[in-house]
Amino acid sequence: MRLSMLALGLACAVPMLRAEEGMWTFDNLPLKSLKAQYGFQPDKAWLDHVRLASVRFPGGSGSFVSAEGLVLTNHHVVRGYVQRLSTREHDLLKDGFVAADRDQEKKVPGMELLLLVSMENISDQVGKAGQGATSEAEALRAREREIQKAREALRTKTGLTVEPVSLYQGGETWLYVYRKFTDVRLVMAPELAVARFGGDHDNFTYPRHHLDFALMRVYEGGKPYRPEAFLHWSSAGLKAGDLALVSGHPGTTNRLWTLAQMEYARDLGTPLQIAAMERRRAMLEAFAQKNFEARALVGGQIYGIDNGLKATRGYLAALKDTEAMNGVAKSEADLKAKVAQDPKLKTLAGASWGQVKQALAQSRKLAVEQMLVNARGSELLALALHLVRMPVEAGKPESTRLAEYSDAALAPLKTRLTQSRPTPFSAELETHLLTEGLKEAQTLLGNAHPFVKAMLGNRSPEVVAREAVAGSKLQDPAEVKRLLEGGAAALEGIQDSMILLARKLDPLQRKVREIFERKVEGPLREHAARIARARFAAYGKETYPDATFTLRLSYGTVKDYPANGTLIQPFTTFLGLYDRYEGWGGGTFNLDRDTWRLPARWIERKARLDLRLPYNLITTNDIIGGNSGSPLVDRKGELVGLAFDGNLESLGGRYYYDGRTNRTVCVDARAIREVLAKIYDAGHLVQELGGVK
Amino acid sequence: MRLSMLALGLACAVPMLRAEEGMWTFDNLPLKSLKAQYGFQPDKAWLDHVRLASVRFPGGSGSFVSAEGLVLTNHHVVRGYVQRLSTREHDLLKDGFVAADRDQEKKVPGMELLLLVSMENISDQVGKAGQGATSEAEALRAREREIQKAREALRTKTGLTVEPVSLYQGGETWLYVYRKFTDVRLVMAPELAVARFGGDHDNFTYPRHHLDFALMRVYEGGKPYRPEAFLHWSSAGLKAGDLALVSGHPGTTNRLWTLAQMEYARDLGTPLQIAAMERRRAMLEAFAQKNFEARALVGGQIYGIDNGLKATRGYLAALKDTEAMNGVAKSEADLKAKVAQDPKLKTLAGASWGQVKQALAQSRKLAVEQMLVNARGSELLALALHLVRMPVEAGKPESTRLAEYSDAALAPLKTRLTQSRPTPFSAELETHLLTEGLKEAQTLLGNAHPFVKAMLGNRSPEVVAREAVAGSKLQDPAEVKRLLEGGAAALEGIQDSMILLARKLDPLQRKVREIFERKVEGPLREHAARIARARFAAYGKETYPDATFTLRLSYGTVKDYPANGTLIQPFTTFLGLYDRYEGWGGGTFNLDRDTWRLPARWIERKARLDLRLPYNLITTNDIIGGNSGSPLVDRKGELVGLAFDGNLESLGGRYYYDGRTNRTVCVDARAIREVLAKIYDAGHLVQELGGVK
Repeated sequence: MRLSMLALGLACAVPMLRAEEGMWTFDNLPLKSLKAQYGFQPDKAWLDHVRLASVRFPGGSGSFVSAEGLVLTNHHVVRGYVQRLSTREHDLLKDGFVAADRDQEKKVPGMELLLLVSMENISDQVGKAGQGATSEAEALRAREREIQKAREALRTKTGLTVEPVSLYQGGETWLYVYRKFTDVRLVMAPELAVARFGGDHDNFTYPRHHLDFALMRVYEGGKPYRPEAFLHWSSAGLKAGDLALVSGHPGTTNRLWTLAQMEYARDLGTPLQIAAMERRRAMLEAFAQKNFEARALVGGQIYGIDNGLKATRGYLAALKDTEAMNGVAKSEADLKAKVAQDPKLKTLAGASWGQVKQALAQSRKLAVEQMLVNARGSELLALALHLVRMPVEAGKPESTRLAEYSDAALAPLKTRLTQSRPTPFSAELETHLLTEGLKEAQTLLGNAHPFVKAMLGNRSPEVVAREAVAGSKLQDPAEVKRLLEGGAAALEGIQDSMILLARKLDPLQRKVREIFERKVEGPLREHAARIARARFAAYGKETYPDATFTLRLSYGTVKDYPANGTLIQPFTTFLGLYDRYEGWGGGTFNLDRDTWRLPARWIERKARLDLRLPYNLITTNDIIGGNSGSPLVDRKGELVGLAFDGNLESLGGRYYYDGRTNRTVCVDARAIREVLAKIYDAGHLVQELGGVK
Repeated sequence: MRLSMLALGLACAVPMLRAEEGMWTFDNLPLKSLKAQYGFQPDKAWLDHVRLASVRFPGGSGSFVSAEGLVLTNHHVVRGYVQRLSTREHDLLKDGFVAADRDQEKKVPGMELLLLVSMENISDQVGKAGQGATSEAEALRAREREIQKAREALRTKTGLTVEPVSLYQGGETWLYVYRKFTDVRLVMAPELAVARFGGDHDNFTYPRHHLDFALMRVYEGGKPYRPEAFLHWSSAGLKAGDLALVSGHPGTTNRLWTLAQMEYARDLGTPLQIAAMERRRAMLEAFAQKNFEARALVGGQIYGIDNGLKATRGYLAALKDTEAMNGVAKSEADLKAKVAQDPKLKTLAGASWGQVKQALAQSRKLAVEQMLVNARGSELLALALHLVRMPVEAGKPESTRLAEYSDAALAPLKTRLTQSRPTPFSAELETHLLTEGLKEAQTLLGNAHPFVKAMLGNRSPEVVAREAVAGSKLQDPAEVKRLLEGGAAALEGIQDSMILLARKLDPLQRKVREIFERKVEGPLREHAARIARARFAAYGKETYPDATFTLRLSYGTVKDYPANGTLIQPFTTFLGLYDRYEGWGGGTFNLDRDTWRLPARWIERKARLDLRLPYNLITTNDIIGGNSGSPLVDRKGELVGLAFDGNLESLGGRYYYDGRTNRTVCVDARAIREVLAKIYDAGHLVQELGGVK
């Protein structure tokens, strides 16, 4: 029984797509599967409606949910903005926020939303542009010029934002046309304690109890924007087994990696990365233990690393899943067989798997150096390195510069280096991190390594770091500005100790980078692209492209899954939320942090709630980071939930989709309406959202 | 931080006991640790009180909880008895039972409880009895005679039940004196659906929501028995971090196995066992799919296998835990070093680790045959084999017989073979299982194996099985009785086809057994015992003996643990129970089975409950199967909970104690009082339990 479930549920990108795998572009939806599996046949109106209601946030997704421009997304998608809107007196993050009327809605500086209004396939003209070129590189440049030309033409024609999108690793090229909204206001955000109940511990887990939503409103010309389409709220909601669709912007997947790349990540890349994160965490934790202020300074970074560690450990576990990796191997073997049988494909990619392996063998030798020969976690040293390099690089032809100093990148980089920091540099922290970073290099590379010798001479990491920080004026933004504006002349004869250290680092790091790019990254890019093109030639659009932070539709069902020795329930309820609060001791037991605490009004108003209502739910939809804030809609295209995370088992989704256990975690739309009405006294919002079609 | 927790939390039996490890005998409690860690110093009165309130059930534990003989235990400990008390009209298992008064209390036929009233250490006299013997075997017999003599003397003197107990693998011998109660009546049992909410899925898991309790009453002379001691109910209950103690009867642990034995179990023994269980399950499932009646016939067996599979997979996972096994290896290395340094110990056990390895190497060769050369899952064939062997064996001197035909075993065996079965033999099931069992042997041993050749000849498993079942009268108890009473004479010339098949099996199985006992079991027993004696000589009573289904005390605290990517709450509440009911769809969604369903009165009376009350809780106490039904008491010796299970991670407790994640799962005493009052209208019982000291 288990085996047959496996055969049905576990699938890889190509060629044996199964069940609910896939992040599909709107031009190429799996309509046959939807019809066959669910008898669901969305027409053009349905698809246009859902697409035009979907918006892209910086790093996330969202949807229009009222006629007057209300936008629903995750609290964690806008968390940074909410924090910046907060003051010491009004901590919107901690206390939450509800605008009682339109006047109270708070403009969010710098927030821009994108709405995909049309998509144009320019693959043919791009393909033609490359014809007749005498080398791969020349063809690449010709195609790139053609893309930029078409983009500019469409931008001029529409007056809208146009982004080129490369799908199927270059198999197709599209121009996506977006309407951009720049006046976005905060309407409602719950307290952080409920938005991320369980904090870092509950991150990527399920059963979950997160009220991870926020409401924004788009304005144009000072008035609420009336969107062409918005999602109506379902009056019914979902039950187990029901079909559900997610429209949003998945960021990045690596499903088209070769088996060798995944094995490299499993055996070396990811373990190295985890070890480095653990060391970095230990350095920060040692600093944080000094005193309260130190903890305040680096606490956020530690939490960030914890989040990353949890995800990365999940990736590693996924790569170690033998059954799943057998599926990847099977797919690759199938593709290799097809390539071997077709002379044209064989010429294109027949040797590429071998080339990828060779590049990875090189990477194996270089990985530790590549990881360590850098600014060693010192922000000041990284800043000094930019100051040293910028005048040199800016003086070169663009095509020979280091990538981060291209024409397009220079101006934003200068802005970033001179803008005021949220917290000023801490000399103590800088000294601590540089000391520990140099010790780390010393331990892992040995005292004889050129980098260690150059940085330390015969001195100790402590002495080098202390002197470099103490003898530098780069903590002063005015000095940085002066050096940036002064260019090479301003640097001449300068005795700033951090600049001097950066000058030692500069040639050594250039050398490591150059070798790594030549022996590893270049060949990997070239041959991964060849394999991907061969795959597209062999299977075409029977499958979906890797995620590119562009709009996709995924489908799935509300479904339990096996974990922790049992089957995990498809829905959680408010009962479960309060169970976890009480199960940790409720109001009577002091936790170290407010991890499973509830805000006061959630205790006071508990009796108002129908505790049995669904709170979070899980579906088999195939999503990934970037999908945060995506609407979950039913067959009618009505809003039934809000995707905000995957379970631990979904972390493998970076490499493959495993329908046995990969689950999307959503806030149930019924819960949002319930708390707006009963906890937040926001009847006016419920009314605005009320419109069932 | 994690590492230091590990160093503190993970421990092995010997010699580096840590934290809350141990199932301690009442004569040798870890009083120093209790004082040092918790400032807890139980006096003799405390210990006598808890001991005299503890009783042993068949296969489980319990405690006196009122002055009038009420006994608290787990529902699952008395489940079989409750089923036997049920009728078609009154299904006490499904509907639950509450005796409204003493007259309604239902006598449970065959149930006997034991109360440990005293313990006598006879190690010295037993040791002396073996002195002067000329061989190990002679000494063993002399010691055994001495034990039986002392037991009989004490039995005569006290008129009570006396059991010899061998601790520390023979390092100590005790006589435990029990008062036996034979009139035990059922007072209260909740509905099966709440007693094992989540069914097989939730078995061994946590967070848990089981109301796994039942109340019995002991009578003597037709009147409620007034126990010397009973546990008062705590008015406060526990909170996270509080000390808790469990007094009960842990059954069996293998913590004193050598590393080689654990590795053998990990690499071969347990995987073979799991594979065999999976095959057996598949055979039964194939039968069950025929029709409703077939499912009814074998459904219980399938559930039983599922339970066993879950546990066995947990054992295997524990054996694969590298960190934990490193701890085992470390302990063994320490002991080996001590043995090597002490000439006497070296003579005793210096060569024993090598001997154990040799025996395991033999086992590796013989294991598959040993597993397959038998009655192949056919109850009729097993019965026929007894009929064939019994007259032969009974005619031999006792010391040369197969163990199951010893004088003491013969009478109960005859009774068992002739007593009426709960369900009669099903020819269809017998044929199916024997067919599949023979196929299994054919596949795994090959057609050339003597057993396969003898059983099948040139015929197919189907034909052999069908003819053997069809041509046998052994399904008729009268025929079995006739043959048992008739002895060898009755069997002469018999043409019963199952008897004929058993005659083919008999010599082949004897041969496999003889080789396995000589090469594997004998050496293992001898040398495991030598190592254990060396361990006892080296560490003595600094540690605790492996579990022996005798009374032990364990201590621990209420504590969360890491699992499923987060930290798991120390308590669950009624809120969580209803959350899981609703989260699976509540009353509106039909599950295949009633797995997370609640009985009607639990829905109707929900509003009466204080849903925030603790329902189940977890502690770090070190317990194992047999402890089911043990009382959880606080510092005052008052009842705060009822142990009923371990979490998945506790399955490793068979081999080692890992305080990081090993948890005892209990029903909170507050929940029991709450439901007695508010769900079961059993105020009279609450009042009887009411007595806080």
